[in-house]
Amino acid sequence: MQFLQFQPVLTSALPTINALKQPTSDAWVEQAIANLDIILLDHSHCERKAAGVALNFMFRYPSNTKMVRELTAIAREELEHFELVNQWLERRNIPLAPLSPPPYGAGLKAAVRPNEPDRFLDSLLVTGLIEARSHERLGLLATHCPEAELAKFYQSLMASEARHFGTYWVLADTYFDREIVQQRLDELAIVESDLLVNLHPEPRIHS
Amino acid sequence: MQFLQFQPVLTSALPTINALKQPTSDAWVEQAIANLDIILLDHSHCERKAAGVALNFMFRYPSNTKMVRELTAIAREELEHFELVNQWLERRNIPLAPLSPPPYGAGLKAAVRPNEPDRFLDSLLVTGLIEARSHERLGLLATHCPEAELAKFYQSLMASEARHFGTYWVLADTYFDREIVQQRLDELAIVESDLLVNLHPEPRIHS
Ligand SMILES: [Fe+2]
Ligand SMILES: [Fe+2]
Ligand SMILES: [Fe+2]
Ligand SMILES: [Fe+2]
Repeated sequence: MQFLQFQPVLTSALPTINALKQPTSDAWVEQAIANLDIILLDHSHCERKAAGVALNFMFRYPSNTKMVRELTAIAREELEHFELVNQWLERRNIPLAPLSPPPYGAGLKAAVRPNEPDRFLDSLLVTGLIEARSHERLGLLATHCPEAELAKFYQSLMASEARHFGTYWVLADTYFDREIVQQRLDELAIVESDLLVNLHPEPRIHS
Repeated sequence: MQFLQFQPVLTSALPTINALKQPTSDAWVEQAIANLDIILLDHSHCERKAAGVALNFMFRYPSNTKMVRELTAIAREELEHFELVNQWLERRNIPLAPLSPPPYGAGLKAAVRPNEPDRFLDSLLVTGLIEARSHERLGLLATHCPEAELAKFYQSLMASEARHFGTYWVLADTYFDREIVQQRLDELAIVESDLLVNLHPEPRIHS
């Protein structure tokens, strides 16, 4: 089942991309809405990590000019999101604190093949899938959050995450053959959805 | 000999800070002016690294609210510098490429004491010293660069790096006693200057 339609924004020649294999469960929505403060704190960590991932790509592949240009823009945007989420934390008197991550990130990392150029392709696609899932879940928060102003905030971030998925997809499509990209995206999207089949007991953006 | 006067900008109650122990040699200026393209490429790496260092502090000390706020701003600014330097590279047809780093960074890292809270203090001060040295050297490039537009670009970045030194100093002063900060800064500044006594044969911002 493929249900999310993404229109990458970087070029109009791209096909519509069907990314996530399974939609988020109602159980996650309930868990998140019942724990909005923890979700906000975890969201702060997610935005910082998203900036870190974009920067890491640039450290690992410093000569890929197009990639560097696109990911500099993403890193800057993620840091802006990080700042905005942290302002929400401050407004709600939620102190910055570490949070144990859910198994999602490590599970996806394990699916990345270790040798180049596979590693580069898989990293781009896995990062894109995380962006796609963030897009979906921020959308669910925007729809179901009972606090109007916070719901509006989630709404405002949604579009960026879909765009970020598009960027990672376009980068994969730039450096690899489209057929290989599409096939590997299909495989990794199954891994991604499988990792979310059982709701993680602790509320997280990717629980 | 202490010759550079820094006025940290975050609070007016702070004393003037004498940071660098030794000025940059004429030999470095000559080497840099004779290799402007390599210096630009190395500068690009420096700006990306500066963003990475700011982000790493946030991964390591995620609960230090004031630090996170200040370093988010610095990381965003360093990414903007990175983008600007990369535009200069593109204009001059210098392809993005890896460059072997000079021994400066590793030498400073070796001076960071491994156990907390020393590690945190030393990391803040070492990062601040790198910013102070960048400020000094961008100033020298602004003065000596024979290409007017490029000289103006260096001039435009100088002020940020002095401000960044101020931010790292203020953060050290926030989390540690001023007397300890000042004493350790003195020690690390000697290490920093000693690392630059012998000009590194390859032209770098910190050769
Ligand atoms: Fe984001
Ligand atoms: Fe994103
Ligand atoms: Fe900078
Ligand atoms: Fe800086």
